[in-house]
Amino acid sequence: MTPRKKLLTIESMNPRVRAAKVPIVGSLFTRAGEIQREIQEGIHKSFTKITPCFFGDMQLMGHKPCTYLRQVAALCTHPELLESALFPEDAKTRARAILKTLDNGSVGSYNPKYIAQTLPQKIATYIQKRDNGIPSHPRNIIVCSGTSQSILSVLWLVVSDAEELRTGILLSVPYYPLYMDTVALSGAVMVPYYLDEEHGWAINVDGIRKSLPAARRRCNPKVICVINPGNPTGHVLSRKNITELIQLAAEEKLLILADEVYQDNVFGDGATFHSFKKVLYEMGPEYSERVQLVSLNSISKGITGECGARTGYIEFVNIDPEVFEALYILKSFSVPSVIGALMLDVILDPPQPGDPSYETFMMEKKTLLYNLAEKARITKEILNQAPGIYCNPIQGALYAFPRVQIPDRAVRLAQERGQKPDDFYCHLLLEDTGIVLCTGNSFGQAVGTYHFRITLLHPIDELRSILQKITQFHTRFMTEYS
Amino acid sequence: MTPRKKLLTIESMNPRVRAAKVPIVGSLFTRAGEIQREIQEGIHKSFTKITPCFFGDMQLMGHKPCTYLRQVAALCTHPELLESALFPEDAKTRARAILKTLDNGSVGSYNPKYIAQTLPQKIATYIQKRDNGIPSHPRNIIVCSGTSQSILSVLWLVVSDAEELRTGILLSVPYYPLYMDTVALSGAVMVPYYLDEEHGWAINVDGIRKSLPAARRRCNPKVICVINPGNPTGHVLSRKNITELIQLAAEEKLLILADEVYQDNVFGDGATFHSFKKVLYEMGPEYSERVQLVSLNSISKGITGECGARTGYIEFVNIDPEVFEALYILKSFSVPSVIGALMLDVILDPPQPGDPSYETFMMEKKTLLYNLAEKARITKEILNQAPGIYCNPIQGALYAFPRVQIPDRAVRLAQERGQKPDDFYCHLLLEDTGIVLCTGNSFGQAVGTYHFRITLLHPIDELRSILQKITQFHTRFMTEYS
Repeated sequence: MTPRKKLLTIESMNPRVRAAKVPIVGSLFTRAGEIQREIQEGIHKSFTKITPCFFGDMQLMGHKPCTYLRQVAALCTHPELLESALFPEDAKTRARAILKTLDNGSVGSYNPKYIAQTLPQKIATYIQKRDNGIPSHPRNIIVCSGTSQSILSVLWLVVSDAEELRTGILLSVPYYPLYMDTVALSGAVMVPYYLDEEHGWAINVDGIRKSLPAARRRCNPKVICVINPGNPTGHVLSRKNITELIQLAAEEKLLILADEVYQDNVFGDGATFHSFKKVLYEMGPEYSERVQLVSLNSISKGITGECGARTGYIEFVNIDPEVFEALYILKSFSVPSVIGALMLDVILDPPQPGDPSYETFMMEKKTLLYNLAEKARITKEILNQAPGIYCNPIQGALYAFPRVQIPDRAVRLAQERGQKPDDFYCHLLLEDTGIVLCTGNSFGQAVGTYHFRITLLHPIDELRSILQKITQFHTRFMTEYS
Repeated sequence: MTPRKKLLTIESMNPRVRAAKVPIVGSLFTRAGEIQREIQEGIHKSFTKITPCFFGDMQLMGHKPCTYLRQVAALCTHPELLESALFPEDAKTRARAILKTLDNGSVGSYNPKYIAQTLPQKIATYIQKRDNGIPSHPRNIIVCSGTSQSILSVLWLVVSDAEELRTGILLSVPYYPLYMDTVALSGAVMVPYYLDEEHGWAINVDGIRKSLPAARRRCNPKVICVINPGNPTGHVLSRKNITELIQLAAEEKLLILADEVYQDNVFGDGATFHSFKKVLYEMGPEYSERVQLVSLNSISKGITGECGARTGYIEFVNIDPEVFEALYILKSFSVPSVIGALMLDVILDPPQPGDPSYETFMMEKKTLLYNLAEKARITKEILNQAPGIYCNPIQGALYAFPRVQIPDRAVRLAQERGQKPDDFYCHLLLEDTGIVLCTGNSFGQAVGTYHFRITLLHPIDELRSILQKITQFHTRFMTEYS
């Protein structure tokens, strides 16, 4: 080291942070930006604009915010508006009730009691209703600043440097990429398990059971992460599959981290959301008093899509009170804004029949879910018409993750160029149509299979046109490379 | 381990999280709660209510939020209000301009560009103006969800498990307690340095220099944390003292973590806030191109006091671009809400002379600072009238940290009861007056000295009465135990 070398450099920095470093922008997005500039400079293309299909951000994609929610939030932000005739009476009543529970009636106070007691009580009531009366206790609930932070807090709680073997975290493949980074950042190692595409992305529980002895030789597996409804897969787990997974967790002493942020985005024919908590309790005390479960939810998804509010909550099941107390320190690093917290409050207990805002609220909610169902239906239908694309039924969440066949010649060509085959495919699609997808390899996929993720958030006619362009491209691609 | 033992228990949890576990509620606050209940039950006391004097929460303590700020936030939350005549034109213009920079015009979108580019550009302009033109670059600025999270991110970046010696973090004594927890959580060890109460809580830089060789035998000191203006001490560092500290950091290769969240709460006679960044640049390239500095600011303090918004920012100086890029992963765990971010946006560029909201804005700002100055003055004056209390001039922040003499007999009595002498003192004060202070030992203090922290946030007449009760109590206490 030279004497002028700085203290903090890329070499000296925390190796865990370095390990978690992922490229923010992949080559596909860089190229999309270049094309956008080329179009602006007048360079001729066979399309007139870049069409990004990778955002999970509902409001960015045109979803209108919930009117009642925003009215109450505006009233609480600037209470002088309570005197105005611009707001329906129920929104004003609700805002007054919330302001009454806030410290000195202000969203500008820290409001520790509102965030740590009042709101968890309301969440517990909501969860208990959701789960047909299975008890939920405010003392097991933490309101937090979004799901990313929650996942990190939970992993951090479980990871131990004091043990000889590193902590193992079981992650589904395909996974949501954030999980990879979080595992690295927490100092744990990833233990992959594969979702079964042939069976609607179900969890192959026996497969996990068989793989654990090998995993135990290199790490100490402690947590199994499950995303239900699935991102990027759009599947909804069956009650039976959840039961099997809970049995596995009990046998193998794994904590279940259930990412249930899409629980209100379920729309597939016959698909029902079963919370892990409910299934666990219905399995009887042998399981319900023993299996440790952490469930996540968020207002970034669901019927609100308030990504900008950075607010969610965690319910802990079978966690000892001492552990929960120790969580205090982690909690204090992931406090949501008070406005985010009150948005969660509002949506847990929306307008009821007879309230002035009820009709509008229900219309907004039904429109969202009806449109998602319709778009899920046409996405599967159109994609499956193309020979060499296979798309499972999309039952929930906001995405589809179809498998595409890539002919051997294209695979070899991609390899010669140093590209992954699905990157090669998505790059060609981009050059041909301006459509930007997420490539399957960013989420992980079974060896020799190729996928992309597409969001269902475009307006229906636009989505139909995008899907048709993809299938037309795919047909040309298959002809050219077969 | 029995086979039914759970995976996650207080014994198995991450030892760092366990180490950071501090009692949320000390015995003083527990007792205050009991007294509150006793009063409600009709038990006679010499006072009628509990008077908490420990909150640093401006709006909780009655500070009125900035009208213009809340107007713009309400307009952005519910843009239909832009049509109403209830808002001044400049607030509407500002809200329209912000909405135009938001993704799809919504605070409900993630808005990564707004948070990572647009707002840092505005912050850089603001800092550059604050520091008389010394350059500030948006690429070195991160908007984040509050200062607690920022401190953790910075320490986490610097800490390394891969080294033989643990990372050392220099913390001032008295410190703000959150720092202790954060150091424990990050896996580092604390290296205390004492502020010089006899010289207005200045940093004794020579003292630090002399103590470093011993510290280096037990850890690898990498960061020195400085809070300026000081919490709990209310001092403002002189330009000379900052210069000396920067020289030390350069010699000893320490990264300076400057917690400057009270930079807009400076009101003492002749006191001026000098940012570490400005002093560093004025020291010439030998320092300005070499010393690594991280500066924190927040809208929880200053003239806004929007604690509930959980929004602040970090400026990095002399951090390599590769390190900054790696910060991406830490950033993604501390994203503020979009409404918090736009509140910061508004306050960086407030109404100007001639704007409809200018007069109100300035009146609100001046009232706040005038009142703080007046309260700082009477706090020092009244406390110093009591023999055995010594209070330094209060120049900034929101607190005073006076030293109290505790007679030997009281110290012995406290020890017999297993109490710290300042806890003993504060408990007696509570029983006698209902006043709840923070005891000095929660912040750390030089051996054999005793202090308490009192906030300046009560209305002036109430504060005067509180101070008088404290000095009267102190006089009785001295008589009784001398």
